[in-house]
Amino acid sequence: MKNGLLAGKRGLVFGAVDERSLAWHTAMRCLEEGAQLVITNIESALALGNVVSLAKENNIPVIACDATDLNDLQHLLEKSQTILGGKLDFILHAVAQSQNLRRHRSYDDVNYNYFLQTVDASALSLHKLLQTAKKMDAIEEWGSVVTITYIASERSQLGYNDMADAKAMLESIVRNFGRIYAEYKHIRVNAISQSPTPTRAADKWNETDYFYEYASHLSPLGLADAEDCANLCVALFSDLTRKVTMQTIYNDGGFSHTLLTPAIVEDGRILKLNEK
Amino acid sequence: MKNGLLAGKRGLVFGAVDERSLAWHTAMRCLEEGAQLVITNIESALALGNVVSLAKENNIPVIACDATDLNDLQHLLEKSQTILGGKLDFILHAVAQSQNLRRHRSYDDVNYNYFLQTVDASALSLHKLLQTAKKMDAIEEWGSVVTITYIASERSQLGYNDMADAKAMLESIVRNFGRIYAEYKHIRVNAISQSPTPTRAADKWNETDYFYEYASHLSPLGLADAEDCANLCVALFSDLTRKVTMQTIYNDGGFSHTLLTPAIVEDGRILKLNEK
Amino acid sequence: MKNGLLAGKRGLVFGAVDERSLAWHTAMRCLEEGAQLVITNIESALALGNVVSLAKENNIPVIACDATDLNDLQHLLEKSQTILGGKLDFILHAVAQSQNLRRHRSYDDVNYNYFLQTVDASALSLHKLLQTAKKMDAIEEWGSVVTITYIASERSQLGYNDMADAKAMLESIVRNFGRIYAEYKHIRVNAISQSPTPTRAADKWNETDYFYEYASHLSPLGLADAEDCANLCVALFSDLTRKVTMQTIYNDGGFSHTLLTPAIVEDGRILKLNEK
Amino acid sequence: MKNGLLAGKRGLVFGAVDERSLAWHTAMRCLEEGAQLVITNIESALALGNVVSLAKENNIPVIACDATDLNDLQHLLEKSQTILGGKLDFILHAVAQSQNLRRHRSYDDVNYNYFLQTVDASALSLHKLLQTAKKMDAIEEWGSVVTITYIASERSQLGYNDMADAKAMLESIVRNFGRIYAEYKHIRVNAISQSPTPTRAADKWNETDYFYEYASHLSPLGLADAEDCANLCVALFSDLTRKVTMQTIYNDGGFSHTLLTPAIVEDGRILKLNEK
Repeated sequence: MKNGLLAGKRGLVFGAVDERSLAWHTAMRCLEEGAQLVITNIESALALGNVVSLAKENNIPVIACDATDLNDLQHLLEKSQTILGGKLDFILHAVAQSQNLRRHRSYDDVNYNYFLQTVDASALSLHKLLQTAKKMDAIEEWGSVVTITYIASERSQLGYNDMADAKAMLESIVRNFGRIYAEYKHIRVNAISQSPTPTRAADKWNETDYFYEYASHLSPLGLADAEDCANLCVALFSDLTRKVTMQTIYNDGGFSHTLLTPAIVEDGRILKLNEK
Repeated sequence: MKNGLLAGKRGLVFGAVDERSLAWHTAMRCLEEGAQLVITNIESALALGNVVSLAKENNIPVIACDATDLNDLQHLLEKSQTILGGKLDFILHAVAQSQNLRRHRSYDDVNYNYFLQTVDASALSLHKLLQTAKKMDAIEEWGSVVTITYIASERSQLGYNDMADAKAMLESIVRNFGRIYAEYKHIRVNAISQSPTPTRAADKWNETDYFYEYASHLSPLGLADAEDCANLCVALFSDLTRKVTMQTIYNDGGFSHTLLTPAIVEDGRILKLNEK
Repeated sequence: MKNGLLAGKRGLVFGAVDERSLAWHTAMRCLEEGAQLVITNIESALALGNVVSLAKENNIPVIACDATDLNDLQHLLEKSQTILGGKLDFILHAVAQSQNLRRHRSYDDVNYNYFLQTVDASALSLHKLLQTAKKMDAIEEWGSVVTITYIASERSQLGYNDMADAKAMLESIVRNFGRIYAEYKHIRVNAISQSPTPTRAADKWNETDYFYEYASHLSPLGLADAEDCANLCVALFSDLTRKVTMQTIYNDGGFSHTLLTPAIVEDGRILKLNEK
Repeated sequence: MKNGLLAGKRGLVFGAVDERSLAWHTAMRCLEEGAQLVITNIESALALGNVVSLAKENNIPVIACDATDLNDLQHLLEKSQTILGGKLDFILHAVAQSQNLRRHRSYDDVNYNYFLQTVDASALSLHKLLQTAKKMDAIEEWGSVVTITYIASERSQLGYNDMADAKAMLESIVRNFGRIYAEYKHIRVNAISQSPTPTRAADKWNETDYFYEYASHLSPLGLADAEDCANLCVALFSDLTRKVTMQTIYNDGGFSHTLLTPAIVEDGRILKLNEK
């Protein structure tokens, strides 16, 4: 599918680590739709995966940036505009990190330094990006910013830890900065609430495949994968969605709006919890 | 527990069929809190259960009323005020009926006459009650009206059929008439979104106990039963909640706000769906 | 903007009356994106506006259909498939009608026959369409259905009358039939919650321009117009949004997610909208 | 109104500064309902208002505590249990602070150290309280915890600044710790989303009375005041609401669920609030 939806648009993509990343799939789809791109991630993540070599193969410049560092962000935004030849038309913010989650601290035994780091990395990083970009006037009129969230921001999910709280804050930042950017230059800010997706980031906390199976059984249309995420990003970056802003849009095959499915009931009996 | 919370208040309770009914439990708790009551239900429901004899034992007058019939409603409201000696301070509307659900029509093969009857009985009946009462000025300043709904109004649940759509409309009527009654005489209108509860009405569509077990596993505090519903009604009828209006309040042990619990995961594996 | 997003797709569009209609704009944009179309509306609406001649100019077949009539729907779906040469890939359902609203009945003095007609025309018509289409297997695998709703389904707005309740039910039907169609053939069903838009239908109840001004002041990105609606429809009909289903998506410049804006406050005092 | 609803219950109340405080009104109502109390606040707040002398008049012990300090919290919980003679049955958490808001930093020019302090004081403080209490097993079976939030957590309001984001996170903590406490000892955790209330805390950011007037015009039942908040707290602390958990309950006269009212429209023209 190649429709020229992003022809002439300049984009910045945070968060690609390897070829499984939502951000990598999105970058590739944006290229395909005619955009010019800069890819960025924190130094340690660039070292971790193979995104640098993937980007090189596709002639996409990569700039290291710690999205919690204001100087880094300013440098990134300056350099990106220089490379791309103008203000940014779209940004994907796919940035999240929780040491409490990684280290399997349970939610009633979190480390609060980690918690504030989770907030800083997973929610404030969007605010910092948007505040820095606004001070620099780095985003083009009618531009579009997308971040990635998850339904645990609204409903409690065992194991998602302080990331759930950070995502709730992230969606609030989307609304509050979305209002300001709309009034400022018709720039929209939205979040995609994505299905559980088996990326490298998710490996950290989904120790078992059973959760994917459960979520899949509760997703009437099936789980959205990284390609589905990339496609929705293209729609949100394109001019098809110019008045859509301040929202969380669910890219999850219906998971968020479903209570009970035939797949869960199976043969008229529900989940036979006690028969194991 | 007897705290005199409803001392001197006059109440009207729709929907009691037998001693398992949410409405019956609510009536008994309201009595205990000092209210005077009239109980009502449609003739056929009064014949079906033993609520007439239960009411007689407790000296509660019973007036038959088809809540979809404007004349019946007017007669009920007149007579209730005469019996109770004044305007009504609170009303419980626990009225719902679906022939599509009863007759196990699947949601993609409903009968549309039944569907409109479901709407009329399960949603419009609240509107008719409130419109009739307003024309008669039958509710006291700072009065309180409560109806019963269920989370399937917001998320799709296999098997709940057109009742889900009626409940969505019911909650909308709560908001729209709630606004009007608030402006009119400080009267509040709210819905309680109740846990799945094994009443006679629920027998009709929950053919198996498995759904209760599943819902229970997703309710961190356990399912709310009829007594819990009665207690919340007392709180909403009392003067403790005078500025609470136009809302759906979840009486469900956390079910509506929960995605995944230890009870669902059990031993680190999720639901072993394929191992049966 | 012409990107071939709907090349080869067959679509059915309900609800166009004249060149201001959301449905007409959507039809034109779908044509531009390469779709083949059939346009439909109830006989009286076709007579009211100039859509028949507009369609003729654009070589779009028009089939009269009362969307509350199962026979009409069946005939429409049969004939559309014959004309278009196959199953439908997308449908726009923009159907709403309220006699209570038209005749300025206040919400506490509605006519209940009208109310049931409002439900039938504005909510059940979607169910009837989807049920009929499913029985006929008339929608293609991975197809997309969109209906139009409004935020008054969630928050009470003076003057929107029983239409608010019908819209709440409509969004519930989107969820419930969305789940079934997803499981059945990966077909998605969504609602667009559109800004107040000055179409012919809106003329009926917005007697004054002030409401548009108020809504505009609370929409950081400005009101979405019919062209914006058409563009979002294209995105939802296209393959960019294959896992987006059972949702209400707000096409309203942020109106639904905004409490207070500088435009409302203006110079430290709130809301002197008429004093300019 | 004195109904003995909290007879024999032990409570801890955070956040009282002076006689206008939501927390002070709540404390007084809890006393009236038969509870025993300990009042707490940060040293600087105790010095700021007259709550210490108010508490002395009412024989309520006051313990200074910085709710962001784990040692302080542990000390508070130990000492409270000693004074009250057992585990806590209820806690009111009314703790919020934002230097960005106080210092009138605009939302697109926040100081990020302040932002993290806002998060720590206004959201994490609840988590710290709950985590510390759980490690100490300081809350009684079937206990109840309430925190205070505001609708700006869900919709963007000019001027509410980073507090909006902190409140969104606070409500998420309510859900996530609510799930855990429910499973642990049937303890419920809820948030009250309170009307704008002219307390000392609100003085800081509501420079004008116009916002109260606007909010009041959009609140069909009128704004909820501190006494209304106290009453709802009593209901939530009492045994009337044992299965209500993980929720945000709106104590706002319908403000959150209202789009347009006659008071806003006034005489067919919208919003001439200042011309009266």
